[in-house]
Amino acid sequence: MNFSFTPIGVIHSPYKEKFGIPRQPSLAPSARMTLELLAPYNHADTVRGLADFSHLWLQFVFHETAARGWRPLVRPPRLGGNDKVGVFASRATHRPNPLGLSLVELIGIDTGNGVILELAGADLLDGTPVLDIKPYIPFVESRPQARAGFIDGPPPRLSVCWSEKALADLAIHRIRHPELATLVEEILAQDPRPAYQDDPLRIYGVRLYQLDIRFRIAGDIVTTLEINAL
Amino acid sequence: MNFSFTPIGVIHSPYKEKFGIPRQPSLAPSARMTLELLAPYNHADTVRGLADFSHLWLQFVFHETAARGWRPLVRPPRLGGNDKVGVFASRATHRPNPLGLSLVELIGIDTGNGVILELAGADLLDGTPVLDIKPYIPFVESRPQARAGFIDGPPPRLSVCWSEKALADLAIHRIRHPELATLVEEILAQDPRPAYQDDPLRIYGVRLYQLDIRFRIAGDIVTTLEINAL
Repeated sequence: MNFSFTPIGVIHSPYKEKFGIPRQPSLAPSARMTLELLAPYNHADTVRGLADFSHLWLQFVFHETAARGWRPLVRPPRLGGNDKVGVFASRATHRPNPLGLSLVELIGIDTGNGVILELAGADLLDGTPVLDIKPYIPFVESRPQARAGFIDGPPPRLSVCWSEKALADLAIHRIRHPELATLVEEILAQDPRPAYQDDPLRIYGVRLYQLDIRFRIAGDIVTTLEINAL
Repeated sequence: MNFSFTPIGVIHSPYKEKFGIPRQPSLAPSARMTLELLAPYNHADTVRGLADFSHLWLQFVFHETAARGWRPLVRPPRLGGNDKVGVFASRATHRPNPLGLSLVELIGIDTGNGVILELAGADLLDGTPVLDIKPYIPFVESRPQARAGFIDGPPPRLSVCWSEKALADLAIHRIRHPELATLVEEILAQDPRPAYQDDPLRIYGVRLYQLDIRFRIAGDIVTTLEINAL
């Protein structure tokens, strides 16, 4: 038995690679993205009444990792990369069916030319194919008392510092991306390193928009070193 | 572009037809069902650690309505069947991609022979193909303040009465299904009629297990008339 789905829309996002994307939605609220509906779904009728909802579910495809298959056990970063849990007890991107599920905030809907949804707090890679949009129903789906195993709250945050070079670079690039400083801080504070890496000299790079953000992490301080156009 | 998915499991449920299923999960907590994982996913490893979570997301296929296609506008029962909203502003089963999303309670996991998850509060049709299981993450997904348009709380409930005949039938069938009385009351209290129907003489039937539950609705009172084995 086999079910086949066609994207109803595609995500346009500052996140150009998986590395650096916060591990849950809502952790980087400055990451604005858009969901562009594709024909024949891009008619104002399909989203009539949607603006009355503040939050939406997106069901989407992990298109970049889909080809890599799955394993029964995964190492969640929240367990320090040591303990293994079952793939269905995790939100790992490598799954038997590479389906994602994200709760996002709906900022606005533009139906002037096709349908574009403006979203905040989303954690989706640029180009992500979206299969469905559903309104969030708090009386059913908000369960603050749910027991959530090893995921008992937001992960600890690093402090973010900026080098002189990075501040100079920022001054240039924030003209085009006014939220860049906040977004970089939100993303780097999450500690994007793989769980088993802790080398204070190693320089990492994360792509945001068409920029490469270079940084280093020592202890619980992350330092933004420079921002280069790609 | 096209994505193809294979079920990882199948639902065994008392709900044998769409009519009568509460319109949101959690409204009929007595509806116990199981999710049987299919090979090669039915290994205890895939669910290691899952028992630490009280709630799960199921991403599944509306397999019975999938072939009927979709329309841009739908009439949600909560709006009395008069107003139309866009398909993406509703949780209607007829969608461009017939994907469902339900939050269910995890009661237990049996890994003695394959993997069977025991679930409560689910609203899935018997035989539903499940594509993915994800743990519920309250710090991200519980948003009690979310604005939810026309879905501002649970729907009003009808009062449930039992005819003498129904009570006699119940005495027979509750031997096999001890929760039957509660489940019937939970389901009928939701008013399963299509929104535009209001005929106090009309007798409806809803299938649960291998039983046909006959009932009538007048005003805000639903009367269970009889329970027949099918």
